[in-house]
Amino acid sequence: MAVNPPVLNPPLPVPGFKVGTASCGVKSPALKGKRQDVTLIVGDVDCHAAGVFTSNRFRAACVRWGEKTLTTHAEKIRAIVANAGNANAGLGEMENVWARQLIESGASAAGVDADCVLSSSTGVIGTPFPIDRVREGMHEAATSLTADNWEASAHAIRTTDTFAKWSSAQIDIDGNTYTLTGICKGSGMIHPNMATMLGFVATDAPIAASDLAPMLKRVANRSFNCISVDGDTSTNDTLYLLSSGIGLGHTPLADTSLFEQALTELCIELAQLIVRDGEGVSKFVTIEVNGAASEADARTVGRAVAISPLVKTAFAGSDANWGRILSAVGNSGIAIDTNKITLSADDVLMFEKGNLHPDYRDADGMEVFRKPEFTITLDLGMGSASSTVWTGDLTHDYITINAEYRT
Amino acid sequence: MAVNPPVLNPPLPVPGFKVGTASCGVKSPALKGKRQDVTLIVGDVDCHAAGVFTSNRFRAACVRWGEKTLTTHAEKIRAIVANAGNANAGLGEMENVWARQLIESGASAAGVDADCVLSSSTGVIGTPFPIDRVREGMHEAATSLTADNWEASAHAIRTTDTFAKWSSAQIDIDGNTYTLTGICKGSGMIHPNMATMLGFVATDAPIAASDLAPMLKRVANRSFNCISVDGDTSTNDTLYLLSSGIGLGHTPLADTSLFEQALTELCIELAQLIVRDGEGVSKFVTIEVNGAASEADARTVGRAVAISPLVKTAFAGSDANWGRILSAVGNSGIAIDTNKITLSADDVLMFEKGNLHPDYRDADGMEVFRKPEFTITLDLGMGSASSTVWTGDLTHDYITINAEYRT
Repeated sequence: MAVNPPVLNPPLPVPGFKVGTASCGVKSPALKGKRQDVTLIVGDVDCHAAGVFTSNRFRAACVRWGEKTLTTHAEKIRAIVANAGNANAGLGEMENVWARQLIESGASAAGVDADCVLSSSTGVIGTPFPIDRVREGMHEAATSLTADNWEASAHAIRTTDTFAKWSSAQIDIDGNTYTLTGICKGSGMIHPNMATMLGFVATDAPIAASDLAPMLKRVANRSFNCISVDGDTSTNDTLYLLSSGIGLGHTPLADTSLFEQALTELCIELAQLIVRDGEGVSKFVTIEVNGAASEADARTVGRAVAISPLVKTAFAGSDANWGRILSAVGNSGIAIDTNKITLSADDVLMFEKGNLHPDYRDADGMEVFRKPEFTITLDLGMGSASSTVWTGDLTHDYITINAEYRT
Repeated sequence: MAVNPPVLNPPLPVPGFKVGTASCGVKSPALKGKRQDVTLIVGDVDCHAAGVFTSNRFRAACVRWGEKTLTTHAEKIRAIVANAGNANAGLGEMENVWARQLIESGASAAGVDADCVLSSSTGVIGTPFPIDRVREGMHEAATSLTADNWEASAHAIRTTDTFAKWSSAQIDIDGNTYTLTGICKGSGMIHPNMATMLGFVATDAPIAASDLAPMLKRVANRSFNCISVDGDTSTNDTLYLLSSGIGLGHTPLADTSLFEQALTELCIELAQLIVRDGEGVSKFVTIEVNGAASEADARTVGRAVAISPLVKTAFAGSDANWGRILSAVGNSGIAIDTNKITLSADDVLMFEKGNLHPDYRDADGMEVFRKPEFTITLDLGMGSASSTVWTGDLTHDYITINAEYRT
């Protein structure tokens, strides 16, 4: 049911990293050997690292541990350990114990210090964490550590994802070629603020942790925080960025802007893959908001349109219901002047400065809305800032998937 | 598909008011004579009035006119005119013209001054308003004005509503008996802040407009603003309260608290009818939030749970997925301490102070979630304030209704 999932080029190995996976039946012992569900990303050297976490006030233990680890060891990260099938969330005091045990099992398997390990868990909330099976899995994953295992790793972090998601890029800076490879997962509950999403990006570009942290926040705001499937956000969402470059002996980049641009593009690609695989999504819609007073305003308006159930069901029904889009803009909370708003779908001008455009014909709008991919462009007429948000439609399949998730 | 729609007692006539309806084919000439779609509520005397309007920044002309009229004529209102089938919204400059023509047609039909008339339009956005048919309808409605026509009026304001909604009450204050009768409509887009909802309440209790306005705001916050079907809000939502008492010569009430209590109960009844008739709703769920630092916090948490698509699909699937409820609480933006939260479904204690309750069994939770009506109770452990929100589930029928609304 994914919308035009692209055929992805194989992910590129990143100097300084090895990856391993295993199948240990995290969700149920019956699944052992059936699908990869634990992964280990190990740095050969101390990596500089940054993280962006869920905005949900219920934060799973892995998020709390990760945040803490980054405050003290952001320049010495040696591994990320992750599992799919159990979120280790909503479990009270045991959550902390299991999260630490997960970290220790990964550290022991990889032969690194547990204080230098980040972890992520994704899956069902509230089911006791099967630490024994996961511990075994981690040790098995360590036996498969190689530089070119990123694709397996992308598979191993999936939950309801129907395809594995990764992207790689290379950039030349000052005569050196650096690689970025990222994997991610997420399909339901995808919404601004890192909803049930895991993303891990590794690079050998030499960037200090003190630069990585603010950069990753900016990049997340223009990529993962600009997608929406159903407006919900989860307890475990995490984006980690690891850089091996300084550990490998490279001189830190004086100007990180080229790298940031490449990272932004990579993260947008990853984020769009998540929308294409959104639960029950049958359309991929780009919401472009221009003429806003600020980028934040533009993003708020784009998100308001992207999460409106009435807009999303109109997408699903191929109904060019511009009234619902304008109503969603009006609900965004942003100061707007309804007489300044202009709205198009692809190249069809629907609504111009407060009025339905005289040449607009419903049939033309419908033709756009029937496409599997199209762009809604809004001009607010309030300034010159822009933002783009990517979203899907709200379909019967979404209901089926989510009403029957645990049954 | 409505959830346990109650058999309603006939609405009571209210001294000082007459009501008329007509069928003029607002949505399409083919519907003329098939269903009532215009209504006229006329005061025999000058009425004191108050209104609460949509929070959407796109406000239809009827809302803008109504707000303006109340600033100058809140003690002299003589009529409410309303139509279903066309929202007269998203139509640019013509919207204002048509809204005024609607008001004038009602005023002329009722024989009152147009400056003393409030109006509401509900229905499709962006379709030219059929003022000629509506004008004819208004004059026809005027020929049917009687004191006991409230039920017909409740029918005439429906759009996708599957049943007509009204409620009446009588209260004795200082030896006098006063009547309250209210009608309302709304099924989709129902959400806090008066979403695609119309409500008109008439009373002969003598209360000055200056008291009515703040009272109606408080009442709306505890009734219509505490319901949610899909989290969307519309351009036309309006709640009007008219009091004929002072015009009829009664002395204004010195103490309005008894009246406010009766009005609150009446509006909660009306609001609950809207949830029971929510688009595609198959369950009626009460979200009770206790132990909050403030009533506003409690309401925010209740709404966050009530609009979460993941929670609503869990309701639809009879899946006692307490993790999604807690995640929605965490997303509400309110400061919470996850170790203080307690959660029950009816009398089944699921989660207590940050931990899954040791006696909780999934089967017990499922039994509650299978019922057509149940209550989720949250205690935040942050204070002593409470709020109650009413909501429905998110079903396949919602998608069907909204993906195919205009087709």
